[in-house]
Amino acid sequence: MLTQDHPNESAATGIARAAKEAFTVSQLIPSSERVNALHEIRKELENAKDKILEANKRDLEAAQKEVDAGQMSPSLLKRLDISKPDKWNSMVEGVTQVADLMDPTGIVSYASEIDENLELYRVSCPIGVLLVIFEARPEVVVNIAALAIKSGNAAILKGGKESNQTAQLLSKAIQTALSKTSLPSSYIQTIQTRAEVAALLELDQYIDLVIPRGSNSLVKSIQSSTRIPVMGHADGLCAVYLDESADVKKAVRVVLDSKTDYPAACNSAETLIIHTEILHTVWPEVAKALVEADVQLLCDSATLSALSHETPSPPKFGTHLCPSAPADYTTEHLSLKLSVIAVPSLDAAIHHINTHSSHHTDCIVTEDEKAAAKFCRGVDSAGTFVNASTRFADGFRYGFGTEVGISTGRIHARGPVGLEGLVIYKYMLRSKGETGHIVGEFGSGEGMRKYRHHPITAHKLPF
Amino acid sequence: MLTQDHPNESAATGIARAAKEAFTVSQLIPSSERVNALHEIRKELENAKDKILEANKRDLEAAQKEVDAGQMSPSLLKRLDISKPDKWNSMVEGVTQVADLMDPTGIVSYASEIDENLELYRVSCPIGVLLVIFEARPEVVVNIAALAIKSGNAAILKGGKESNQTAQLLSKAIQTALSKTSLPSSYIQTIQTRAEVAALLELDQYIDLVIPRGSNSLVKSIQSSTRIPVMGHADGLCAVYLDESADVKKAVRVVLDSKTDYPAACNSAETLIIHTEILHTVWPEVAKALVEADVQLLCDSATLSALSHETPSPPKFGTHLCPSAPADYTTEHLSLKLSVIAVPSLDAAIHHINTHSSHHTDCIVTEDEKAAAKFCRGVDSAGTFVNASTRFADGFRYGFGTEVGISTGRIHARGPVGLEGLVIYKYMLRSKGETGHIVGEFGSGEGMRKYRHHPITAHKLPF
Repeated sequence: MLTQDHPNESAATGIARAAKEAFTVSQLIPSSERVNALHEIRKELENAKDKILEANKRDLEAAQKEVDAGQMSPSLLKRLDISKPDKWNSMVEGVTQVADLMDPTGIVSYASEIDENLELYRVSCPIGVLLVIFEARPEVVVNIAALAIKSGNAAILKGGKESNQTAQLLSKAIQTALSKTSLPSSYIQTIQTRAEVAALLELDQYIDLVIPRGSNSLVKSIQSSTRIPVMGHADGLCAVYLDESADVKKAVRVVLDSKTDYPAACNSAETLIIHTEILHTVWPEVAKALVEADVQLLCDSATLSALSHETPSPPKFGTHLCPSAPADYTTEHLSLKLSVIAVPSLDAAIHHINTHSSHHTDCIVTEDEKAAAKFCRGVDSAGTFVNASTRFADGFRYGFGTEVGISTGRIHARGPVGLEGLVIYKYMLRSKGETGHIVGEFGSGEGMRKYRHHPITAHKLPF
Repeated sequence: MLTQDHPNESAATGIARAAKEAFTVSQLIPSSERVNALHEIRKELENAKDKILEANKRDLEAAQKEVDAGQMSPSLLKRLDISKPDKWNSMVEGVTQVADLMDPTGIVSYASEIDENLELYRVSCPIGVLLVIFEARPEVVVNIAALAIKSGNAAILKGGKESNQTAQLLSKAIQTALSKTSLPSSYIQTIQTRAEVAALLELDQYIDLVIPRGSNSLVKSIQSSTRIPVMGHADGLCAVYLDESADVKKAVRVVLDSKTDYPAACNSAETLIIHTEILHTVWPEVAKALVEADVQLLCDSATLSALSHETPSPPKFGTHLCPSAPADYTTEHLSLKLSVIAVPSLDAAIHHINTHSSHHTDCIVTEDEKAAAKFCRGVDSAGTFVNASTRFADGFRYGFGTEVGISTGRIHARGPVGLEGLVIYKYMLRSKGETGHIVGEFGSGEGMRKYRHHPITAHKLPF
């Protein structure tokens, strides 16, 4: 009954409908079978390793031509390569790690005795069908498939076109593995073209959530072209603020790590905000450490002139300091550049961040408990940090085991998204009464039943 | 600094920007001030009662003309009237009730010691600026304003144009009350026209969530025309399934209550699904009770012919039974009509619901524990009920105190949405170490720090 013929439907509709049917069927299969599927996927990947790496070689050769023709960046090429032992091993090991994480479904987050013999349970469950759109790195197919399966969602995956040959074989291995379980093989599907994405974005009757991981413009363009909810993973424009009471050693360490640990990451700092009171004390030490680490400082007039008093002028100040333009404070540099601005107060720092940052992760360096608490409450970002590098904003570092990405949205899941971000809940209401339960018997009048609303302590469903 | 001049901005931009600024400012004001604001609102409403009821009278007079001209339904007119004592009293009493609910913000839902002296807290916080669009009933302005204020969100409200004069004065009372607190009076704003709504839907830099409460077509049209996330409150197409093992008394009671307790509500049943095994036992008893309550039954051939054996035929069978058309099974009747269909199995019932219902609330009547568990897991709806009326799907009945509405979306909040549905979370990370915390010191190598990830037991922030 679930597999009817649909002779007139488009290819995209067929994919989306199959995904929804696979999701629906999977709801009645125990979650242990999903864990089993993950183990089968690892086996299939290892069986097909040679073929997959051959396909990866073909993708790399095609990409090399594009690099030679100046049509692709060498760093993109590098990200395509999954043949290095540590990359391959961490991909397959990651599948087992996800299998071993706690099942995010079936968890009771609210339970209440509504009336005698009438119990309400709010139980976590998968969202449904995910459409995940990401960039070149082919191993993301495997990562996301593992997360979707573990959380009980069906998924349709679209990677970068540069990795098509690799992704096709990874996807084939996943489908072969699924066919050895009772889960439908259409539980995880991959698509190749933007036209398919465009067609799928129309199908809100089948697809429940779109997860784009990429640039702001990718996320905005998807948000503009679909009725389906979008969980965006876009830019990070993170700031570090050095408060009046900042400790100089902490300031140097936290700013340096936030900027230089991995400048291309979304959780790296792009802006440094400095309280005017410490322009001649803490700031020169931080500036020296930054330029020593080859960071280019784009400074407003106050922070620039504060450094002009340094005698003798440190060697790199001549080449690494320059005046900033207003646009620098809304630019995600993703390189060894840092925009610097002075502010007269904590309030002004909070205001600068709330009006310029991308609400991803922002940090205060301070010795003042009150300032720390005010910053954490007043800064409207997914992460507000005290004396800790912005680079800690990451699912693994937060302890989620792995992450879907870092959500820049403000509903459902915010910041690093673990398996919990891929589930929602449903309410189950059970009457154990002798005659069932009806609303018409409740009310304020005499003889009417009154709602009881006693909390029930339950972490798992009792049935 | 927060109130700059913006001479060239449109009216809608001015409203949205003021809302965002009000939200940002409010983040540093203790939540007790929001409770205080609710008490002030109640006082102001009582002070302005006479003027508000005069405005309501003018709205009613204008609406009466439209009813006389056949341009408005009498039921819509009835919903405009807030002058009856019980309606007025429950509106103002509702403000106090919301004030007394638990603060949904500042609650720690995840806390972990990442490293010695490095603590991570996930803390609930408001979403930001809400744009709420709803229908005629003017008292919803007060309900939603109270919920937004309690949960710490700024809000822009748009009611039906029929209630404009009443809504303007309710809104004025709210703003007067806010001006007596330290919260900005632009925390709650109301708008009057669809053109303003259209302009606001463009402003995703200021508005964080749109909450439309109305028809499916309203929700879909908003989802199609904005990048802002939408929490839709749309149709309910709820089903009751009578399983093979259904108890006849429970079946009669639950079906009757689900259909007739309040047929115009979204949680009323629209479809009755019957296992073929009980077509000649349970079904005739249920059918007799339904027609006795004046319910029109739109039956498929199996359920219709099963009733033809009843001798003598109950008096209303002649007028209240008729054959169904396929479209009846996807129609939200909102009246005393019920579509009826027979299925050969529990699986077929689950499949019918998953492919026809609006995923709102569906019920099984059964004596079989296994069938109940399978139904609750297999039916992909916000509410899956056992031997209990679909009419229980309601925030008050669930024990949330009050509700924003019933979400038909599948992310963030599903089913009846209480104050919890109006909050999200942020991550606060605090280093108490002597030199701050940096990522560069962690790793797998010798001498590198390892992540600790010890759970911390905390319900409230310790700072």
